[in-house]
Amino acid sequence: MRTPAQNAQLALLLEVAGTPKPGNVDRHRDLEALRFEHFLAGTIGAQRGLELAANGTAVGPAFERAIEGMAGQQGGNTQFGALLLLVPLVRAAREDLSQAAVESVVEETTVADAAGFYRAFDHVDVYVSDPPAEMDDLDVRRGSDAVPALEDRGLTLSDVMARSVPGDDVAREWVRGFERSFTAANRLAEADGPLSDRAAAVFLSLLAERPDTLVARRRGEDVAREVADRAATLYERGALEREPAAVEAFADELVDRGINPGTTADITAAGLFIALEREALEL
Amino acid sequence: MRTPAQNAQLALLLEVAGTPKPGNVDRHRDLEALRFEHFLAGTIGAQRGLELAANGTAVGPAFERAIEGMAGQQGGNTQFGALLLLVPLVRAAREDLSQAAVESVVEETTVADAAGFYRAFDHVDVYVSDPPAEMDDLDVRRGSDAVPALEDRGLTLSDVMARSVPGDDVAREWVRGFERSFTAANRLAEADGPLSDRAAAVFLSLLAERPDTLVARRRGEDVAREVADRAATLYERGALEREPAAVEAFADELVDRGINPGTTADITAAGLFIALEREALEL
Repeated sequence: MRTPAQNAQLALLLEVAGTPKPGNVDRHRDLEALRFEHFLAGTIGAQRGLELAANGTAVGPAFERAIEGMAGQQGGNTQFGALLLLVPLVRAAREDLSQAAVESVVEETTVADAAGFYRAFDHVDVYVSDPPAEMDDLDVRRGSDAVPALEDRGLTLSDVMARSVPGDDVAREWVRGFERSFTAANRLAEADGPLSDRAAAVFLSLLAERPDTLVARRRGEDVAREVADRAATLYERGALEREPAAVEAFADELVDRGINPGTTADITAAGLFIALEREALEL
Repeated sequence: MRTPAQNAQLALLLEVAGTPKPGNVDRHRDLEALRFEHFLAGTIGAQRGLELAANGTAVGPAFERAIEGMAGQQGGNTQFGALLLLVPLVRAAREDLSQAAVESVVEETTVADAAGFYRAFDHVDVYVSDPPAEMDDLDVRRGSDAVPALEDRGLTLSDVMARSVPGDDVAREWVRGFERSFTAANRLAEADGPLSDRAAAVFLSLLAERPDTLVARRRGEDVAREVADRAATLYERGALEREPAAVEAFADELVDRGINPGTTADITAAGLFIALEREALEL
């Protein structure tokens, strides 16, 4: 029997192994400075932080520890968003893993958790947009330097996540009871075949539904919308099974254009974790 | 900083990701009932046993725990031989990892360690040949049922390994101070490029040097010799760089013929661990 922390690590590995995952590192694709092996090392590095979450450490410090460990490889930020979903889910999995349980975890976060979240940014470069002027002292790029402002305003991690919506669909999961993560888990359980195929199918279904917010931040809303529309076209005509070459070509094109739908990958990883915890996947 | 137990898990992941590794599951190849995802799950499952070894638990019980955890997925025996090398290496890595240190670990093994090794066979199917008649009561396929005979004869795990040579090149590592594992580590450190390429190059170099003993047991000495000779031809003419298609074709042919040089993969994993522990790999 795997522990919740082990299932979280396995979810990270299964997510990156899923192929084709258009635009992202997968079993068959590397990016120029970010390779499959960096994700393997990042997953192993995240172990201790995930164990802390499973053992009852608060979300903020557990997350910071997971990110610090994940970042101990040269590929940079491999799994920041995925861990921001997995840490509260792992903590919720100490009891019966449900949307209600993870909503409780979110509600119970404190200002100290928010400080841990900000401190995590000291360990990695994360691509974020400029905040509105009144939020400048809370720019996450300030990392731990923003902690005093955070404490002055008395913001919990749940408050911080709420202020990141819209524009960040990882934060949106926090606000909406991890709705898409649980949907992804159901789809993974209902799909057939090897898990790397299932992960790819669920990734494409999620990409088709909403423009990826990491793509929108980096490349603009129009590009994010184009990617979602093309994913929808492929998904609706069952291209993964019927025209696999078309999906592979789309995947290669996005890699070539440097378009990486990372938020969609993060939610896929969260779905894999939930499905593993529920023993809904044959493995 | 990764712990020795974490480096061992990462070594298992980097080994299976290395491609092309003729005949074996790799980043680009699955076997029919044994897929990449089974190796990912097996690696996560082995975590606790590797931690026990790192924390000073004796080799036999730590190995049994690692195998029990590794076997908790449906692909069956993914990494038995690799763990039989990694557990003593992880234990040796508590001090400075050297051939002398791991030789001490081997010498200090007891009858209880041998019993743990036999109990590990209760958790998996491992392909072994019939033992000679006078060793029948010590057939590893008896698993824990063989423990009384083992105790009667007073055999340590080091004794058991010595009796498995020749014919098992994992056991040979135990007898010869993990010579090829350390050689593999040096080659990995001296090679260039992504680790999946380095792992593939070192795998081919090892396969070229000695007929794989798992292939010999399953398919006969002649097949094992043929595979080694063809690997040597490819390796000597630098085919991985100059004629990559020839190596890929060889890899596909061995998969199609069901020829899986598992012992060579085990030694590659051991080499990856040693190189990671020595911080000799950029990652």
